[in-house]
Amino acid sequence: MHTLLLIPPDFVEYIGYFGSFLTAITFVPQVYKSWQTKSVGDLSSWMVAIVITSAIVWLVYAFAINSGPVILANSIVLILTLVLLYLKFRFKK
Amino acid sequence: MHTLLLIPPDFVEYIGYFGSFLTAITFVPQVYKSWQTKSVGDLSSWMVAIVITSAIVWLVYAFAINSGPVILANSIVLILTLVLLYLKFRFKK
Repeated sequence: MHTLLLIPPDFVEYIGYFGSFLTAITFVPQVYKSWQTKSVGDLSSWMVAIVITSAIVWLVYAFAINSGPVILANSIVLILTLVLLYLKFRFKK
Repeated sequence: MHTLLLIPPDFVEYIGYFGSFLTAITFVPQVYKSWQTKSVGDLSSWMVAIVITSAIVWLVYAFAINSGPVILANSIVLILTLVLLYLKFRFKK
């Protein structure tokens, strides 16, 4: 396979795991902050809606290619952004 | 390749493109909203920091596996979240 960066395949896989880990935890601090402050006015509902949709699309993709890390990461993203959607409605002014 | 879902490979690729497209546009409505309202207090700086870091990690991964759609999507995410970081500091109270 032609690659643009000369990185050993094993190491590339670890980079993918690290990316999946970061993607998974992305919305942890946002959910925590929104929960603590009970203030969500500055959050874009469209952003939340797009993330929920994309997490579902990536989940279908991940199941199709049978990728455990991508399934796990997007499941966590989906759960956290559903919580965020709930908080967005709950604390709506 | 063993797959959990019985989806034709070509179609799986299109699902990946659609996921990349959604990922790419995720922060468009948030940047627009933050720019318009000049109010960013409810946004978690940690979330923005994690997205910037993960976009860089995914870019390295995408270059290593030579994936055009993932390179494009994460380049757009990186640019938009850097703008968001700028707005977060600019409109800090």
